[in-house]
Amino acid sequence: MKFVRFLVKDYYPKEPFLGAILDSKIIDLKSAYRLYLLEAGICNENASKRISDQMLTSNMVEFIENGELSLNAARCALDFAKNSTTNYPNEKLSYDYSEINLLAPITNPVNLRDFLSFEEHIKNARKRRGLEVPPLWYEIPAYYKGNTTTIFGHEDDILWPKYTENLDYELEFACIIGKNGIDISADDADDYIFGYTIMNDFSARDIQIKEMNIGLGPAKGKDFATALGPCIVTKDEIPNPYNLEMVARVNGEEWSRGNSGTMYRTFQQIIEHVSNSEPIVAGDVLGSGTVGLGCGLELGKQLSVNDVVELEISGLGILRNRIKKP
Amino acid sequence: MKFVRFLVKDYYPKEPFLGAILDSKIIDLKSAYRLYLLEAGICNENASKRISDQMLTSNMVEFIENGELSLNAARCALDFAKNSTTNYPNEKLSYDYSEINLLAPITNPVNLRDFLSFEEHIKNARKRRGLEVPPLWYEIPAYYKGNTTTIFGHEDDILWPKYTENLDYELEFACIIGKNGIDISADDADDYIFGYTIMNDFSARDIQIKEMNIGLGPAKGKDFATALGPCIVTKDEIPNPYNLEMVARVNGEEWSRGNSGTMYRTFQQIIEHVSNSEPIVAGDVLGSGTVGLGCGLELGKQLSVNDVVELEISGLGILRNRIKKP
Repeated sequence: MKFVRFLVKDYYPKEPFLGAILDSKIIDLKSAYRLYLLEAGICNENASKRISDQMLTSNMVEFIENGELSLNAARCALDFAKNSTTNYPNEKLSYDYSEINLLAPITNPVNLRDFLSFEEHIKNARKRRGLEVPPLWYEIPAYYKGNTTTIFGHEDDILWPKYTENLDYELEFACIIGKNGIDISADDADDYIFGYTIMNDFSARDIQIKEMNIGLGPAKGKDFATALGPCIVTKDEIPNPYNLEMVARVNGEEWSRGNSGTMYRTFQQIIEHVSNSEPIVAGDVLGSGTVGLGCGLELGKQLSVNDVVELEISGLGILRNRIKKP
Repeated sequence: MKFVRFLVKDYYPKEPFLGAILDSKIIDLKSAYRLYLLEAGICNENASKRISDQMLTSNMVEFIENGELSLNAARCALDFAKNSTTNYPNEKLSYDYSEINLLAPITNPVNLRDFLSFEEHIKNARKRRGLEVPPLWYEIPAYYKGNTTTIFGHEDDILWPKYTENLDYELEFACIIGKNGIDISADDADDYIFGYTIMNDFSARDIQIKEMNIGLGPAKGKDFATALGPCIVTKDEIPNPYNLEMVARVNGEEWSRGNSGTMYRTFQQIIEHVSNSEPIVAGDVLGSGTVGLGCGLELGKQLSVNDVVELEISGLGILRNRIKKP
């Protein structure tokens, strides 16, 4: 399934909905599940409201934590919406894209970790500074932890931080963790993956370089914005995450093109490393790092105010954001 | 006030309580507030339970988010417990330390940021590697973001991570953010501070050095454990956070001694930096970084299995942890 979170335009209160993409429509899963429970005679109106609120919550971390219970409920709801006749004149189960605003599919992961898994990217980025790839890169899947308070979704504006002169995008994809675990081997790691999404790790290159020179890694150079979306695609729909075409366009012009198969390490190997003596938890986000030539830094280019950055990955959709001056 | 979170021994279900330290006792604030509401005739039994559950929640982030409402309720509850006669034979409002186990006073901050604010520490740590302090350190309050899934409290065992040969403590104190904000000036920053606690930023030095060489900062070198506690002291009880005596003892022997006044930057300046173009939120934890000579690395010493590490800071208490082999 392809899960989204969305707001309905002109609908109040402005509470997020959990949705699934069905052809060119977005299905409101909670309403569909409530009607399914009623029509199947499983419980009464009060209970169907309570249970659908809980199972098809738009809090994506809680939805993932609910595990198979919520996934099964989502499948029931989607089937119900597909086959539903117009028996419910006062209910609306599906929306056109024009009627809604997509939100980031997950906004409250406990941890957002971002890796550096593409050899070509680190080679190119280091070469720009006259440096080689550090031999330790081949030994350790290095990462920094991102900021979970600044996650943006598809079509959200990204505000240019006051402190930078050099804003950049990074073409990445992310794996979403499906359940809690510790000391997970790479062989078992697939069980811990919920799905995948596109990630744009926006970067303020001037301050990032300064911060990395002090040794604690990037902070203000990254923490103002990470875009995720447009949806989370469950892993069953991505049989091979290591052969995805990855493209970045700026104002419609192609700047970057790569393939996820050039990752030096798999997410399964990354999960083994991260979970060594330390828990990973449902909803955690693991970013792949930038694909080779997947950012302006490697191309000698920079973003400008009002640029529209569009990342497209096969099977995962298109994630588009505009850069705005605050 | 000095807020703690605790479990009552031999009491089920094992739900955390929110407490306040009163002389040598711990007050159960929720029960005290419930009885206060009843005795004052403000609401009935059902409502007093609901409202005290909400206002004196042991979820510290939610407690802080509740702002003055919860702080006032806590003050009422503490006053009530102080003056309460034994009118309630079936209620227990105060506990001896022997009856409880303290928990970390906050376990679910959205962000845990740790700085490098003591010049002597970075000088000593760099010198060990034959390096000078990078000039950019004087320009930028560098930090890394810690792991919020591995926060431990007073008397919690710390498990030695399988992947390290060199475990260390770091003697720090932390500021807890009291409300959400963005673009806060240092002059206004005090309004955003809730209180202070002791922090032990446990470190696996061998992997930390390797990770920092790759440029993304420490990850596995830090993420297995951070200890916070024993309590959060509200800022009104710490009139000058920049004159606190800081001591670390290992197995009762003093290893480190310093003073918070040697910080190169104040938390107020740090808040200005972090909140530039980026929100800080209630419950966020900002670590000071290690005071000069406040870790084994600077002393040429390492921790061993079964060592007991005790950090003491004037006004904030003692935070004690034992290192255990898993």
